[in-house]
Amino acid sequence: MAPAATGLSNEAQAPNPSRFDPSFTQHVLDTMGPKTTDRNRVVLGSLIKHLHDFSREVELTIDEWMAAVHFVNDVGKIYAESGKTRNEAHRVSDILGLETLVDEIAHKIVSESGVDPTSSAILGPFWSPNAPFRDNGSTIIQNPAPNGRVCLMHGVISDLVTGKPIPNAVFDIWQASSNGKYDFQDPDNQSPNNLRGKFRADENGKYWFYCYHPTAYSLPTDGPSYTLLQMMDRHPMRPAHIHIMVTHPEYKGCTTQLYPKDDQWLATDTVFAVKDDLVVDFKPLKGDDKAVLELDYNVILAPKDYTGKTF
Amino acid sequence: MAPAATGLSNEAQAPNPSRFDPSFTQHVLDTMGPKTTDRNRVVLGSLIKHLHDFSREVELTIDEWMAAVHFVNDVGKIYAESGKTRNEAHRVSDILGLETLVDEIAHKIVSESGVDPTSSAILGPFWSPNAPFRDNGSTIIQNPAPNGRVCLMHGVISDLVTGKPIPNAVFDIWQASSNGKYDFQDPDNQSPNNLRGKFRADENGKYWFYCYHPTAYSLPTDGPSYTLLQMMDRHPMRPAHIHIMVTHPEYKGCTTQLYPKDDQWLATDTVFAVKDDLVVDFKPLKGDDKAVLELDYNVILAPKDYTGKTF
Repeated sequence: MAPAATGLSNEAQAPNPSRFDPSFTQHVLDTMGPKTTDRNRVVLGSLIKHLHDFSREVELTIDEWMAAVHFVNDVGKIYAESGKTRNEAHRVSDILGLETLVDEIAHKIVSESGVDPTSSAILGPFWSPNAPFRDNGSTIIQNPAPNGRVCLMHGVISDLVTGKPIPNAVFDIWQASSNGKYDFQDPDNQSPNNLRGKFRADENGKYWFYCYHPTAYSLPTDGPSYTLLQMMDRHPMRPAHIHIMVTHPEYKGCTTQLYPKDDQWLATDTVFAVKDDLVVDFKPLKGDDKAVLELDYNVILAPKDYTGKTF
Repeated sequence: MAPAATGLSNEAQAPNPSRFDPSFTQHVLDTMGPKTTDRNRVVLGSLIKHLHDFSREVELTIDEWMAAVHFVNDVGKIYAESGKTRNEAHRVSDILGLETLVDEIAHKIVSESGVDPTSSAILGPFWSPNAPFRDNGSTIIQNPAPNGRVCLMHGVISDLVTGKPIPNAVFDIWQASSNGKYDFQDPDNQSPNNLRGKFRADENGKYWFYCYHPTAYSLPTDGPSYTLLQMMDRHPMRPAHIHIMVTHPEYKGCTTQLYPKDDQWLATDTVFAVKDDLVVDFKPLKGDDKAVLELDYNVILAPKDYTGKTF
């Protein structure tokens, strides 16, 4: 609506003349009422501006808009029809890089010293709050799987500032089996908490246990997220990875993932969760009849009140 | 992932130094494969850039991202559970101004002469392809409603360039009843095609028929779109309106809505579909025992090959 009739601002929103009403986006923003919280005003205001700018930039067609409406409905339909087990909205946001981005926004710390804490990576949908504590030296493999390559994983959890070990830090690990499935997804082959466990670091900050070398797997290929991947001519693969969540009451927790350095999907991970310090080297292990591989991975945590470099 | 390991571009995307990886968004865009169509590359590329810029600008939190994931799932859940009758994704896009924007992008024509064709407005979800043809002078009111104020609506459909009338142009009208509901939504009170009809302009480009003065109504207040309105402290009201779609094989069709000038919701229409030339004056009518009001509304159509001013 033009300013004459509505009293709307006539301020231009684009630097160039355009056939589009320059006051439209501001008009939409101005309908927000006084009881909108400050945060909602900022977040929804920015969302509306970007949505409008995107639409004008690409001159979004009515058919494309309607396809997007149907896409959103289809995303939620799968969630409803699967009894809330298939979270396609989560997956769509992942393949657009959004979960990795909000993880970076929430957790990225850059130190002044040049040594940074261990990078975070997305939690993903398969963490369980119910993983049992296990003893250092034990195994998370409850249901041995064909082709599973057993690995002795160990390392030290230490303080970013002092470099000292952090005794009693909790190292929580979860991983898919050699078929690329987690216990939740594979009840015929895996009992609950197979390939899950929490380990408490010893007095020297050390943890050690047996797990599998991880296996690459595909996201589901029968839903809207795969449709979107196909529109972008992208594959649905995640590189092989081990999930870890390392916590201690006096430190900022670190939720992350570790990737074998020779995995073919590292550079094009479909959810963009790979970072350099998370790429690891599994080495052949001799003299241990329980494992054929070894992974030495040290974790660095920042103290709870650590802020790092400000920008 | 840093350039050293992936060969990714190190080009900065923001003018200021940031704690965030400046190559992340470009990395996501670069995973699009060679078989992506040009249009998908443009549209999805712009969508991803704006989504990322939005997230960084507001420093979107993990809780906010997760709330958005649940919101999208809830939108599609209503669609699935209602048997596809409640299109909340459509409604959410409407209250964010998106349907009005894509309508403007698709249909906005600015003439060189100063006289513009009749403005378009959104189609909305209630148009029917099955509305019957009726004779000029007849009524679309099949089921008289309490408090319905009958109006004689008439006007001329003419050519933007020549100013001449357009005989045989089709004037398709649909409107809600005095309870704010369309026939689809109100089977207990309304038979199919109540308050719908198509009229063919006579040799002088004239159409005339009886309808109701329209009634303002609220969008549904029990779904995700209303939740979003509440977050913005906005009302769910649409101003009273009459939908029309005017077509002729030799002209660009015009789908639009007409609004009484004294409606209280004009400036804050929840779907932002009001434009100045669509605000009309219903006048008292004397000497016609079928109606108490009159609406004179002329429609201007642009010839099919008309392009208007370019920007």
